[in-house]
Amino acid sequence: MNEPATAIEAAVAASPLHQLKDELDIVIPTIRNLDFLEMWRPFLQPYHLIIVQDGDPSKTIKVPNGFDYELYNRNDINRILGPKASCISFKDSACRCFGYMVSKKKYIFTIDDDCFVAKDASGKAINALEQHIKNLLSPSTPFFFNTLYDPFADGADFVRGYPFSLREGVPTAVSHGLWLNIPDYDAPTQLVKPLERNTRFVDAVLTIPKGTLFPMCGMNLAFDRQLIGPAMYFGLMGEGQPIGRYDDMWAGWCIKVICDHLGLGVKTGLPYIYHSKASNPFVNLRKEYKGIYWQEDIIPFFQQVVLPKDSTSVQKCYIELAKQVKEKLGKIDPYFDKLADAMVTWIQAWDGLNPTSASFSNGKTG
Amino acid sequence: MNEPATAIEAAVAASPLHQLKDELDIVIPTIRNLDFLEMWRPFLQPYHLIIVQDGDPSKTIKVPNGFDYELYNRNDINRILGPKASCISFKDSACRCFGYMVSKKKYIFTIDDDCFVAKDASGKAINALEQHIKNLLSPSTPFFFNTLYDPFADGADFVRGYPFSLREGVPTAVSHGLWLNIPDYDAPTQLVKPLERNTRFVDAVLTIPKGTLFPMCGMNLAFDRQLIGPAMYFGLMGEGQPIGRYDDMWAGWCIKVICDHLGLGVKTGLPYIYHSKASNPFVNLRKEYKGIYWQEDIIPFFQQVVLPKDSTSVQKCYIELAKQVKEKLGKIDPYFDKLADAMVTWIQAWDGLNPTSASFSNGKTG
Repeated sequence: MNEPATAIEAAVAASPLHQLKDELDIVIPTIRNLDFLEMWRPFLQPYHLIIVQDGDPSKTIKVPNGFDYELYNRNDINRILGPKASCISFKDSACRCFGYMVSKKKYIFTIDDDCFVAKDASGKAINALEQHIKNLLSPSTPFFFNTLYDPFADGADFVRGYPFSLREGVPTAVSHGLWLNIPDYDAPTQLVKPLERNTRFVDAVLTIPKGTLFPMCGMNLAFDRQLIGPAMYFGLMGEGQPIGRYDDMWAGWCIKVICDHLGLGVKTGLPYIYHSKASNPFVNLRKEYKGIYWQEDIIPFFQQVVLPKDSTSVQKCYIELAKQVKEKLGKIDPYFDKLADAMVTWIQAWDGLNPTSASFSNGKTG
Repeated sequence: MNEPATAIEAAVAASPLHQLKDELDIVIPTIRNLDFLEMWRPFLQPYHLIIVQDGDPSKTIKVPNGFDYELYNRNDINRILGPKASCISFKDSACRCFGYMVSKKKYIFTIDDDCFVAKDASGKAINALEQHIKNLLSPSTPFFFNTLYDPFADGADFVRGYPFSLREGVPTAVSHGLWLNIPDYDAPTQLVKPLERNTRFVDAVLTIPKGTLFPMCGMNLAFDRQLIGPAMYFGLMGEGQPIGRYDDMWAGWCIKVICDHLGLGVKTGLPYIYHSKASNPFVNLRKEYKGIYWQEDIIPFFQQVVLPKDSTSVQKCYIELAKQVKEKLGKIDPYFDKLADAMVTWIQAWDGLNPTSASFSNGKTG
């Protein structure tokens, strides 16, 4: 398709953000045919897709015509990483982080295959990717709260009393988008409120303040690989592991303490996607129950983590974090020993596939 | 007026929140007739007003018929507080905090006389006070960020990954509302963007995380006097002082570090009011310029303040804060010595007028 066929496609092609098509990959973990991409075609077709096929590698995943993609199944992962493939989860959407590793682009947008295009209050289809790019390309403000939310949004600014020395902001590493319709609830809340739907359209983007942790959901997430990629590890989940559905949470805790240390920003809010299908709460409960218990210790651990001054790159931070995970969380369960080892393996695998990034170092530590 | 005359009044009277009319005072600082109250009549008439008349005490302030109020001018303040009246600012809206002190109610809502009723996206008049009461009566969540904002709002909850041990929340001490139309900008931003208007209706309330400071605006603000009242001092501004327009900012920094210490919450977001009139940016620049400079040191000071464990009441916290202000900020300018003394005077005056609250102590310190 060389000519834009619809008004939406023309608008997307005309957008200055369209130029990021050579700098951004879309990562999709899946076990089924990707029919959901039809709805996203006007927005996502210009971009390259990295599809990480979970489960049975002999199954064929159909991708709608016209999309440019590469697809990796478990056999591919094992072939490419060899013994280091052990750090990539199987039978869990945590496998998506393999896609972050093999990408050669600066930015990643990752989305679940049960997420559709949401509509804004006026009924207009929301170009989620465009909003993520806006979020990533404008600074974050983690050191002081701006009451009118993102000061870089159209028609907004810093309010009275916001220190001028902090208005330059810091580079944004992560853009966390939200979900209309099915909210991202844990199994107990799903069970208690099976009919609850998120219909509240909150027209805001905000920086999560330095020192504050948040529950990062991997359903609708974008980040700057160059700034934070090596910390976007989704952990050990699924087959052979005692927990599931904590892959994105784990990554969220890790990236937040590292962003705080390196002086990088994490934004949450817009864009919304439409989350169509609630996962089975009984299955989720089985996957989650240890995580629900363990997080009561894990979160205080992450709240007190201090990274040393000489951890000046994401890799160095992550290796240090793995060390502290082993020391402090290993006591909770042997799982955390294994996870800490996998964190180190992940960095080795990342650096193997991304040799030029291995020595990449941020100037600032905070 | 004994019978509700309009549909709005009937709705207000029927609201369970209406019952707070015996527990909440509305504090309005002013130098002019309070015609703006006409628009607020359906929402505010059930409540008692405390009007703090600034400027020439011989001037008569007209209050629309039907409102129940008490009015204090400078002569009244001097008579009631005697020599301690020196802690109450003159020719600056900071004088409003005198109203907080003389109130006998549990809650305060304070509003500027150039603030009108805003409309929501559907064109419906917003009952700002009702939203503030909702904010104050539901818990805050300062220890972890909830990505769907206020988990206690209708149709919302805590998302996956939010620790269950933190879902009870903490008591809410402050509800900070926002402004449509004229945003609360400092003089330099007003000068640079004279035509900017806030039209973005962000349908959210959120807790400002522990450890994060924010610019608190006094235009549309509610708080629990019993929990935080003695810290809601608006400082020394206006006549005889080197700065203005930092009264609410000062109070905001103080209440935030004290709420963080005592385990209390501060919310921001809804409700909106319609801010009708921008103040003169040239006059504002004269009032603000020292504050703009000083805040570069003041904010790092507040970011590092640690209150001792035995500061278990708001008064004890505030006296300790005054001590640290004198020690650390006194170096910047003799103004801060004077301000620290006024902070102590304020507490003495508060305890004089509120003898039963003097020994009030919160159980928790954090």
